[in-house]
Amino acid sequence: MQPLRIAVAGLGTVGSGVVRLLHEQADILAARAGRPLQVVAVGARNRRKQRKIPLGRARWEGEVLDLATASDVDVVVEVIGGSEGAASELVHAAIAAGKHVVTANKALLAHQGADLARRAERAGVALAFEAAVAGGIPVLKALREGLAGNRFSRVYGILNGTCNYILSEMRATGRGFDEVLAEAQAHGYAEADPSFDIDGIDAAHKLAILAGVAFNCAVNFKAVHVEGIRHVSAADITFANELGFRIKLLALASVGANGLEQRVHPCLVPIDTPIAHVDGVFNAVVSEGDFVGRNVFEGRGAGAGPTASAVVADLVDIAAGRRAWAFGVPARDLARLPAAPMRDHVGRCYIRLQVKDRPGVIADLTAILRDEKISIESMLQHGRAVGDEGVPVVLVSHEAREAAMSRALSRIGRLRAVIEPPRMIRIESL
Amino acid sequence: MQPLRIAVAGLGTVGSGVVRLLHEQADILAARAGRPLQVVAVGARNRRKQRKIPLGRARWEGEVLDLATASDVDVVVEVIGGSEGAASELVHAAIAAGKHVVTANKALLAHQGADLARRAERAGVALAFEAAVAGGIPVLKALREGLAGNRFSRVYGILNGTCNYILSEMRATGRGFDEVLAEAQAHGYAEADPSFDIDGIDAAHKLAILAGVAFNCAVNFKAVHVEGIRHVSAADITFANELGFRIKLLALASVGANGLEQRVHPCLVPIDTPIAHVDGVFNAVVSEGDFVGRNVFEGRGAGAGPTASAVVADLVDIAAGRRAWAFGVPARDLARLPAAPMRDHVGRCYIRLQVKDRPGVIADLTAILRDEKISIESMLQHGRAVGDEGVPVVLVSHEAREAAMSRALSRIGRLRAVIEPPRMIRIESL
Repeated sequence: MQPLRIAVAGLGTVGSGVVRLLHEQADILAARAGRPLQVVAVGARNRRKQRKIPLGRARWEGEVLDLATASDVDVVVEVIGGSEGAASELVHAAIAAGKHVVTANKALLAHQGADLARRAERAGVALAFEAAVAGGIPVLKALREGLAGNRFSRVYGILNGTCNYILSEMRATGRGFDEVLAEAQAHGYAEADPSFDIDGIDAAHKLAILAGVAFNCAVNFKAVHVEGIRHVSAADITFANELGFRIKLLALASVGANGLEQRVHPCLVPIDTPIAHVDGVFNAVVSEGDFVGRNVFEGRGAGAGPTASAVVADLVDIAAGRRAWAFGVPARDLARLPAAPMRDHVGRCYIRLQVKDRPGVIADLTAILRDEKISIESMLQHGRAVGDEGVPVVLVSHEAREAAMSRALSRIGRLRAVIEPPRMIRIESL
Repeated sequence: MQPLRIAVAGLGTVGSGVVRLLHEQADILAARAGRPLQVVAVGARNRRKQRKIPLGRARWEGEVLDLATASDVDVVVEVIGGSEGAASELVHAAIAAGKHVVTANKALLAHQGADLARRAERAGVALAFEAAVAGGIPVLKALREGLAGNRFSRVYGILNGTCNYILSEMRATGRGFDEVLAEAQAHGYAEADPSFDIDGIDAAHKLAILAGVAFNCAVNFKAVHVEGIRHVSAADITFANELGFRIKLLALASVGANGLEQRVHPCLVPIDTPIAHVDGVFNAVVSEGDFVGRNVFEGRGAGAGPTASAVVADLVDIAAGRRAWAFGVPARDLARLPAAPMRDHVGRCYIRLQVKDRPGVIADLTAILRDEKISIESMLQHGRAVGDEGVPVVLVSHEAREAAMSRALSRIGRLRAVIEPPRMIRIESL
């Protein structure tokens, strides 16, 4: 049979991995797809860069954008990255030229997912992006096809390996955030500019895509409530442990009476849940379907091999003629779900305060919480204050509305005995 | 578009679940598949049985075998069960009549998988069986499509919910095997005749299918080494815990220099591995791919809802025109891998002996192990013997060849101070 003719745009870690995988596994890929998968062209910003990748007879395309219109190309693999610029132009041009598109670009899909899906459908081409969410875990296919019989009430997971690595290391070593981040940067687990990861943006991109697939809705990245892990301290991790929890950066999406709730923030998760044991650079996604119940999918969330695995799975599907709508249903049928306001979110909270150890402070705190109808499940206070440093006081609340909690924390922060801004981390029962 | 016309053969727990899912989710299924999924006919052994299922306008077919040739049927769903008899006849007849087949029948596939795949291909119809392995976990699709870029070195998992429930309960309550089994039967978690489950046959059926998909090889159920959980005692669970392990019935398949190794038996797994935390009726499958690394898939392994979820996912694929070869590659290309002999297996072992507490017994034991070149990593002995009951002695070996271990255990069992047959449970590092 005719080979599937592939152009790879971008030869960084992921692009090189894709080329290498297609080369090394050529025999099994042809057997599984029913036809060979052949790289006919590649393009990247810098040709001169040394790359030890087996390009075979693939030609070099100086103008990356020309890959979109080359007559000898069936599929464009976009692994340039970024929500705008070259990546976006290339994907639009490829779809317009009637080429299938496989991309690992979560930022692009988070911003333009529904629009690109509509364009691809009109052009009659595939838009595939398994690699954009949870790297090597084939979770989009699982939700879209393998669990197609279910309505999902909730999907959530650990979608950023950098944050998970940092939080795992902080717990394992007892060290603080800044120190572990610096080490992660030295090891290449975190970028020189880590804000995309540690401030939760990357996880939010992935969550918006995941929610689109799970709930057959238009991707709505702007509606994601995002908080990162900069404020998680070694003390929080110690207290969480003592209370029977792990701290994880979770990305959660659920559909309820208020609409679609999407949020990314650090969470305390009970130690006996599967997700509490997903450590280091691993990702995990949990889905809750009405017939199947809970499924957990775990694997490597990033890196050349896992990401290439996901990109190539999409290519095999295209080569084999297996097609699915990008977000599970035709683009015109994608639901436009209202965004559930975060202020209406209800949940338990962990609150850590640094207070001067003097009479009446606990009474003041509890009075404020009582005024907001927030009841306390437990309280921890270790040791006595030395000098003016204060002592940490940790409170665990029963379920409370987010708006009430915000008001209470704001008032607590203004108490004279409270000498640092209160830190709140939500507790997820899962 | 034309509906996909479905006949459901068998209206037990699974068949009823399939009919109910197709009814309750009709709207989303049509949206996701691009056409309605319609039950046009059903058949079962006993029409008179009360079944509260929404059959709509589906007709009752008195002769189940006639569903295979009915002109108004596109797909036959076989959920009768059993490797021979009605189920086998129906599947053969349906394929011969050019109908797609979706089945949850692991016994049938374990015995006839490669042959049925070949027949289905020749007839140009789908043979789909996601429900046959790990119930609601879409793991066959994940291995076959989502991870199609990888060569697998190993797949393993917890594939029998009954055994996992019994072992989890034994650990949680400290009770013995017989007592927990009786309770599981009372709760409906175990069959009246539980041998298929507790002797490992059911897990072996599933493993043979899983290995076929992962390694693109002809299913070879007869080559699976099978041991069940009848001999696992409360004492073993307590000792395992003390040594930092959980006891699980694992099904493992790997490809090495000796060929394909397939085995089902109780294992000690380290507490810090994901699979150690899969409890109760949950199943889990772990795959190890060369590019993607380790993936873990967890979910419910049985029950009406999860099994129906898997059956319907196959139906949606057929309705949407998505096709894949049953075992990942065309049937003629399925590898016929030699079976790696169990006697060549190398691994660590846990050995529990009941010995009379008298001088020299440990020296005798260790001499036998030394003769077989088996070295001991640790030894536990608690308490002293009271009367003639003896005391338990637990040994943990370093890696040893299975044949040497068998010879050693046989000699140890003949020592006069050893008053019960030695119990050996393999340790998997994972």
